[in-house]
Amino acid sequence: MSSAPPSGRTRPGGRTARTRAQVLAAVSAELAEHGFDALTVDSVAARSGVHRTTVYRRWRDVGGLLTDLLDATSDDDWQPADTGSLRGDLAALNREIQQSLTERPSIAAALIAASFRSEEAARALRRLWDDRYGRCELVVERAVQRGELPPGTDARALLVTATAPLYHQLVLLGTPPDPRLPEHAAATAALAARAGAFTSGDVEGE
Amino acid sequence: MSSAPPSGRTRPGGRTARTRAQVLAAVSAELAEHGFDALTVDSVAARSGVHRTTVYRRWRDVGGLLTDLLDATSDDDWQPADTGSLRGDLAALNREIQQSLTERPSIAAALIAASFRSEEAARALRRLWDDRYGRCELVVERAVQRGELPPGTDARALLVTATAPLYHQLVLLGTPPDPRLPEHAAATAALAARAGAFTSGDVEGE
Repeated sequence: MSSAPPSGRTRPGGRTARTRAQVLAAVSAELAEHGFDALTVDSVAARSGVHRTTVYRRWRDVGGLLTDLLDATSDDDWQPADTGSLRGDLAALNREIQQSLTERPSIAAALIAASFRSEEAARALRRLWDDRYGRCELVVERAVQRGELPPGTDARALLVTATAPLYHQLVLLGTPPDPRLPEHAAATAALAARAGAFTSGDVEGE
Repeated sequence: MSSAPPSGRTRPGGRTARTRAQVLAAVSAELAEHGFDALTVDSVAARSGVHRTTVYRRWRDVGGLLTDLLDATSDDDWQPADTGSLRGDLAALNREIQQSLTERPSIAAALIAASFRSEEAARALRRLWDDRYGRCELVVERAVQRGELPPGTDARALLVTATAPLYHQLVLLGTPPDPRLPEHAAATAALAARAGAFTSGDVEGE
């Protein structure tokens, strides 16, 4: 669930790809260091060393820059860890989320803050999350195959439940990071999932 | 967990209290209708009918207005519902949260967005959440007294886990509201809590 921009992308059209990589690295650095309010096309152009006319023509404005940064982040080969257990996989995912939200500067935290300022960035961030949660469904499929979870477990609902306490505590409630939280939230969601909480929308006793 | 400002406060110092109520109702309405960007001391003064000099003197700026709105919201007699079961109490709480985040206009959603713009508002919002979660600990105490939960259950951790999926889905992920989510998140957290997930920081199998 890392939100770091891709670096050193090598592709057909190498010069265009290099320009994009330079500009997106500058967006990421400016955003993390100075926040959304200080982010301008000119500051990004200056930092990237790419001519401002090029940046304006290709990315138009701050919303365009943020959107491209977020879309580029999806364009990697990130996969959830395979630790051999549902609980271990969810804990590894949660540690990655906690790390990305608490490192200083945190580009993930800056992008979330920016999403409250730019509708375009908000949509791009939601596409990125959708992509990441989609890749994590593999964690649940593996657990079903191992017989850890009942078939028909709603993977997305389980993944959102396992990760939500991290986002709620760190982004909204502003609780100081608890090193036990990634593991605890993972274990709690795994326990509920094994008991069938994410199967056919019903929870035991309903 | 409602974020509506108090109305018709009657207290010693009635005129001051009335001025405050008028100004805070105007902040709330302006914020919900036009968002943080359009919020100014002048627009609040004009809408409230209170002289702008008074508003500037007493609240100073937009951060001061938002902080007072949030602090005033804590100053009520809100209590969590008592439905007779942990799961029912948590579901009622979640329905209230879902309602406050999805009604249009949503003052709760506007305040969360504003908290990414104003450090002062962010601190005030966290105080408000701390107050609300603190009052909700009663829900867990009652469940322990009824024998539904093991003694020593960490009330705050359970409450955050029960409510986090609502905030994550509705505020960050921007998922369309699912009418089953309040009940499902409550039932999942209650199931995990009954199994001891919030007792002494350990989860079954740890």
